[in-house]
Amino acid sequence: MASTMLGACLRQSVTPAALRSYLAEFISTFLFIFASVGSSMSSRKLMPDASSSPSALVAIAVANAFALSSTVYISANISGGHVNPAVTFGMAVCGRISVLTAMFYWVAQLLASTMACLLLRVATAGQAIPNHAIAEEMTGFGGAVVESVITFALVYTVYAAGDPRRGSFGVIGPVAIGLVVGANVLAAGPFTGGSMNPVCSFGSALISGNFKNQGVYWVGPLIGAAIAGLVYDNVMFPPQLPSDSSHGVVEVVVGYN
Amino acid sequence: MASTMLGACLRQSVTPAALRSYLAEFISTFLFIFASVGSSMSSRKLMPDASSSPSALVAIAVANAFALSSTVYISANISGGHVNPAVTFGMAVCGRISVLTAMFYWVAQLLASTMACLLLRVATAGQAIPNHAIAEEMTGFGGAVVESVITFALVYTVYAAGDPRRGSFGVIGPVAIGLVVGANVLAAGPFTGGSMNPVCSFGSALISGNFKNQGVYWVGPLIGAAIAGLVYDNVMFPPQLPSDSSHGVVEVVVGYN
Amino acid sequence: MASTMLGACLRQSVTPAALRSYLAEFISTFLFIFASVGSSMSSRKLMPDASSSPSALVAIAVANAFALSSTVYISANISGGHVNPAVTFGMAVCGRISVLTAMFYWVAQLLASTMACLLLRVATAGQAIPNHAIAEEMTGFGGAVVESVITFALVYTVYAAGDPRRGSFGVIGPVAIGLVVGANVLAAGPFTGGSMNPVCSFGSALISGNFKNQGVYWVGPLIGAAIAGLVYDNVMFPPQLPSDSSHGVVEVVVGYN
Amino acid sequence: MASTMLGACLRQSVTPAALRSYLAEFISTFLFIFASVGSSMSSRKLMPDASSSPSALVAIAVANAFALSSTVYISANISGGHVNPAVTFGMAVCGRISVLTAMFYWVAQLLASTMACLLLRVATAGQAIPNHAIAEEMTGFGGAVVESVITFALVYTVYAAGDPRRGSFGVIGPVAIGLVVGANVLAAGPFTGGSMNPVCSFGSALISGNFKNQGVYWVGPLIGAAIAGLVYDNVMFPPQLPSDSSHGVVEVVVGYN
Repeated sequence: MASTMLGACLRQSVTPAALRSYLAEFISTFLFIFASVGSSMSSRKLMPDASSSPSALVAIAVANAFALSSTVYISANISGGHVNPAVTFGMAVCGRISVLTAMFYWVAQLLASTMACLLLRVATAGQAIPNHAIAEEMTGFGGAVVESVITFALVYTVYAAGDPRRGSFGVIGPVAIGLVVGANVLAAGPFTGGSMNPVCSFGSALISGNFKNQGVYWVGPLIGAAIAGLVYDNVMFPPQLPSDSSHGVVEVVVGYN
Repeated sequence: MASTMLGACLRQSVTPAALRSYLAEFISTFLFIFASVGSSMSSRKLMPDASSSPSALVAIAVANAFALSSTVYISANISGGHVNPAVTFGMAVCGRISVLTAMFYWVAQLLASTMACLLLRVATAGQAIPNHAIAEEMTGFGGAVVESVITFALVYTVYAAGDPRRGSFGVIGPVAIGLVVGANVLAAGPFTGGSMNPVCSFGSALISGNFKNQGVYWVGPLIGAAIAGLVYDNVMFPPQLPSDSSHGVVEVVVGYN
Repeated sequence: MASTMLGACLRQSVTPAALRSYLAEFISTFLFIFASVGSSMSSRKLMPDASSSPSALVAIAVANAFALSSTVYISANISGGHVNPAVTFGMAVCGRISVLTAMFYWVAQLLASTMACLLLRVATAGQAIPNHAIAEEMTGFGGAVVESVITFALVYTVYAAGDPRRGSFGVIGPVAIGLVVGANVLAAGPFTGGSMNPVCSFGSALISGNFKNQGVYWVGPLIGAAIAGLVYDNVMFPPQLPSDSSHGVVEVVVGYN
Repeated sequence: MASTMLGACLRQSVTPAALRSYLAEFISTFLFIFASVGSSMSSRKLMPDASSSPSALVAIAVANAFALSSTVYISANISGGHVNPAVTFGMAVCGRISVLTAMFYWVAQLLASTMACLLLRVATAGQAIPNHAIAEEMTGFGGAVVESVITFALVYTVYAAGDPRRGSFGVIGPVAIGLVVGANVLAAGPFTGGSMNPVCSFGSALISGNFKNQGVYWVGPLIGAAIAGLVYDNVMFPPQLPSDSSHGVVEVVVGYN
């Protein structure tokens, strides 16, 4: 009986539509990591001590914001535009996607990130792939807390962007998702790198061969993502909430239509 | 009789929907202050004399713009997306929200800002929390005027963004609100810090223990906010205006539909 | 008979709706000039030789883009959101607004710009108001040509943004208008200042008392604006064009709906 | 018979609507190249060694992003807003436009780019027009691969933006297209210049008289564009796909409406 259910699950995970969503996730993650890690390499090429320049920080933050907005945009209606295993995890925690689908998404995202970092290294004739790192004076726990907070912001925004009850606000969802990441890179960049994305940290670690503090970039974002999903779905905007009661006070408070 | 009314008011302020709106305000303000103050700390970490660098100013302005857009976006349909006690004040002055609700919003915003600054300080192992400050050659009055003008711009934009009579323009409201703050930080940053947000100034002052000129960051923004609300509601776009007369000249003048 | 028509015109120009549109134009222009000129002052305060720094150019361009987007946004449905006498001129040339209305707009815009520059000077305790200037090696004619091209881009975008036949694209019109100005400041900043806005150049010249090359900042933008209006209305998208023929090839060529 | 078909094709290519679309493509490309190449000249004027400054890279990337968003915006409903022969090529490969129309588009784009570069050179009194160049340590093949990847990102986004099956997402299409280019310039700028646009590379090469590595800027983008079109139309979102099956898994996975 259990094997039948597993079989049904597996069959559902290899339909043409499902395979398309994995490919969409692969393409979006590949292009995002290419721009995100590439912008970090660009700044280092221009200025060897780029990690101490506000203008390099702006370059990397803007690249992340712009790249995430556009890559979420192109895959939003195919795969949901996660582009990030923490987002996928936050969706799976609340049952928005099945665990099996989440695992296929993770594989696609990991492959995409690794291939993007590898391509960047080869095409630039062996330029070093930069790693996310935690500021010297900070502890790993402090780093995980920061990553957790900023990933909470990201995943909460993804939930809000994809909520059909919010009406026409969905249209600018991909932009809002990109902006929150840009702001968080500016805030956390010199402290933890502002990753929010485990596969970005993993891909660059794999290609550069430096796995220091890798755990921080998995534990922090995944915890933040899970909390974001749980708060959004259970406290802020429960799915079973009848729409009239949920709008009771709101329409007095706000004018947004 | 008065106590009955107060009781009714209080009951209305602790409904599930109302509590949700305070929490939404708390989350959005926490995430905004985290990115806003965090970006200021980041620039100082990268460059000790960051306060004299245009690129640090760009970093902080972009972080404020992006963070405000996304945090207004996520709470717009729950709490109105104030993220700022001056906005709440501007809404209360014109009766858009009740005084009691405004007070609960202020409490949520103050708590959020203080906790965000505290978390930043602890997680970064005691890095100093930067304060808003007025340029040496300026008077406190001059600083309050500047803060008042730029907060007028912010609150006026919030009113316009939330006006259902403006049709589909509401969709990009959160973006417009973020952009006006980004522009104003670029304009006023080296003069007053470009706060526009009393709890941002208060939270960072509380954690850093430096309350110099704190009054400027409350008086200026609150006056600007009140004027913005009064002008919008009484002069520019009075609520009782019949929609046909309000559009008389407009449709000749503009092509916006 | 002529005086009767003039009287009718004048009466139409002082209706409550018309007065509101002048006030909207005043508020938007005031806030835009405050942010635009303020950001230029900020950069100079931070870095005395800011006029030779790419990061100061980014600061000014981003401030212009963000400020124009939001100030067009707030006044778009009241006054059309011109915020610029060149835009008003481009609209008047094609009969979109009457000459008399255009003159009232110009007065509102000139007053707004002058007051914003004056306030900036007083509030910042006498900091110098920066002027638009043409690069040493360039001629006034070359400067006027550059200003003409970039103002063409601005006014053409305003026409497109306000065209109801372009469907839901109107929603992001204010953003597109801001972006084109930001791009043009980055392109033309070190050559002509990238003004595109005669009252911005005039207000700062009046307060700083330096009218050098003022003509360039009126002739260039006004010519560019007039050409943009004429091309849009007569060649690209004639108002009388039956909608079916105008879409003939388009629907094959594009997928935009 | 063949000549009759060619004649019919030619007649279809010189209708008023078709001529308008060539003009729209000319105007948008001219304005985009003016801002893109102009921003590069601006940075060099401000800082002779601008090619090693992250803030100059930010200036150029933001100018490209903002300029492309607005120029795609103004021509999207007339010509499709290609502004780039690689986009035109990607559209022709999948039969979205005829080969003959594509050729007319290319001519318009080439003329526009050359004239914009020429005007920039003359108006700035002979300032050098900057060329796209490949980093010293990289091979031409590596450069072509990088240009191919980033042009894939651009053209794939253009396909997604123009797909009417994606509903209201089309509204922010021009913004998404601009953002992806901005991100890619930040990622690839110091390695290949981040062109993605053969006529931009060609126009600046023609006016500066330096055609080194010109082939890279044609082969790379055209291959990336063709792959993007083929993947989108044949794998990701086949036109003949019945809409119900295409949305099967999607509606479970995403909340975007």
